[in-house]
Amino acid sequence: MSTYTQINLVARPQPGPITPELFELVKKDIPKAGPGEILVKQTHMSLDPAMRGWMSPDMDSYVPPVGLGEVMRSSGLGEVVESNSPDFKVGDRVMGMMGWTEYYLGSGEGLRPVQEGLDAEMALSVFALPGLTATQGLYGFTEPKAGETIVVSGAAGSVGSIVGQLAKADGLNVVGVAGSDEKCNWLTQELGFDGAINYKTDDISAKLTELAPKGIDMYFENTGGPIQQHVIDHMNAHGRIIVCGMIADYSSAQPSPGPNWISIIKKRLMIQGFTMPDHFDQVPALVGKLAPYVMAGKIKYRAHTIEGLESSIEGLNLLFTGGNKGKLIVKL
Amino acid sequence: MSTYTQINLVARPQPGPITPELFELVKKDIPKAGPGEILVKQTHMSLDPAMRGWMSPDMDSYVPPVGLGEVMRSSGLGEVVESNSPDFKVGDRVMGMMGWTEYYLGSGEGLRPVQEGLDAEMALSVFALPGLTATQGLYGFTEPKAGETIVVSGAAGSVGSIVGQLAKADGLNVVGVAGSDEKCNWLTQELGFDGAINYKTDDISAKLTELAPKGIDMYFENTGGPIQQHVIDHMNAHGRIIVCGMIADYSSAQPSPGPNWISIIKKRLMIQGFTMPDHFDQVPALVGKLAPYVMAGKIKYRAHTIEGLESSIEGLNLLFTGGNKGKLIVKL
Repeated sequence: MSTYTQINLVARPQPGPITPELFELVKKDIPKAGPGEILVKQTHMSLDPAMRGWMSPDMDSYVPPVGLGEVMRSSGLGEVVESNSPDFKVGDRVMGMMGWTEYYLGSGEGLRPVQEGLDAEMALSVFALPGLTATQGLYGFTEPKAGETIVVSGAAGSVGSIVGQLAKADGLNVVGVAGSDEKCNWLTQELGFDGAINYKTDDISAKLTELAPKGIDMYFENTGGPIQQHVIDHMNAHGRIIVCGMIADYSSAQPSPGPNWISIIKKRLMIQGFTMPDHFDQVPALVGKLAPYVMAGKIKYRAHTIEGLESSIEGLNLLFTGGNKGKLIVKL
Repeated sequence: MSTYTQINLVARPQPGPITPELFELVKKDIPKAGPGEILVKQTHMSLDPAMRGWMSPDMDSYVPPVGLGEVMRSSGLGEVVESNSPDFKVGDRVMGMMGWTEYYLGSGEGLRPVQEGLDAEMALSVFALPGLTATQGLYGFTEPKAGETIVVSGAAGSVGSIVGQLAKADGLNVVGVAGSDEKCNWLTQELGFDGAINYKTDDISAKLTELAPKGIDMYFENTGGPIQQHVIDHMNAHGRIIVCGMIADYSSAQPSPGPNWISIIKKRLMIQGFTMPDHFDQVPALVGKLAPYVMAGKIKYRAHTIEGLESSIEGLNLLFTGGNKGKLIVKL
């Protein structure tokens, strides 16, 4: 094979599903690595909810959007097939922001080596954006304490599932919110969550009373939607809320209103929004924080793998419909 | 005079104005101070928005409500007329939570001496709940930095006016939001605010664009209402919001919805609610922080004084209609 495919973003998404017209498939000749450069054959790409934001031009003060005509941004894992860099040798596995492309050519800046023996799916499911985001969000702004109760929305998602398992390992009472009985069963039976709520079918408030009888001390928000108000109603004084995602609203033209702020005063709540790109300089420390939990077997994951570069486009929509079961990965 | 009047709370408020039926006037004989006790003739009482919360039974995890049949809670200033306590002597002026009563009898615990030469209205307007709340809110959770822009809602109120002046003294660009042109003029012409917005008549978003051209770094929230969304739309990344009051919603049966949380993520906002009773142990430090600004003539205030204990009942409503001009004080 002397050509490869990359996918460029050529239009901005409108509210609603991601459509193929937003992208352009480009066939290119496989290049040679120039001086100081490496050529990486990407084998796995990660699809993450943040990507919708990267496609949008209105993300004021967030990371800059992907430029039109540029390769779609994504993180992935691959193998160095040519190297003119002293930092990499042929055969090295590397991970980082390589984009929607079968081959990456560049200096390798920002790419990290992948530990030998670390499964590609685990690398992308745990030691990439999901695990780093979970670790930063759970520990970076407030300290979770044994005996406290945490509620995690989007709990079966790639970030939420790790947040819940970390909190469980720390001795918290962990309640997950997800959108199907299958996901809820996975949380409680496989991941060890203390309880799970199916927001589509359960009486959310009644389940919170049952599963968080001493009230809620921390809320890790991945979804938005009507769960917010119920959780706030059950929160304890001095509760902390980490706002990591609003996946229920990313695709909607008219975002739903949030809770009234009176409870923020009455309960003296602290609410902190964050995005992972602000904390990329802390990645080594975050990996260091996360690794012992993984080594101790506390962090399970499941990957939902789809095949082929072009499957990414339709794959993105799975993240916003809840159609994926586990970390969404594209195998190239 | 051998009798005095106190006012007890006898019913819980419903949404809407405070009504006389909630209270009972009680005539009592003026007591003698027992062993270790002091008798204080109260001369000035402070009326504060927090009092509505103290009257309500549903303030879960907040300070306990005033019990039915008990004297209505309030802070005030008075003169010791009898003392069997080593800590106080006759003629001392004291300040603290004495309630809606012409005479206070007790151990004096929690009462603070009032500096000689300090005007009673200034003591209650600056060195009591309003000034302490302003100081804790502005400095207790995040550091205001010279050159930043802060927006203060309820800016002509007792807390907001001090917040704005402290911030101005610290070199911030200070924008106040208030409900009349008269209040706005007072903010800019008397208190030195850089700009003011009349939320009832101005185009809030256009005025924010004009008065906060570099965006908003801090928002000090005293009122709630539609200002919230406009301010959030103009906030900078890593903005901080201190939620001190929601006066627009305290009296309403149906609190208005808050802003959607997507901006909390995109802008990585930190939102902190607080109530002053959590910080009563920090009062000496707060006075120490506030005093130099006052001594330097940076903190102006105006008192809105009404006369007679019974005027308190109708007086409370002024706080929720914006009818008061300055710190509301009852002169006994």
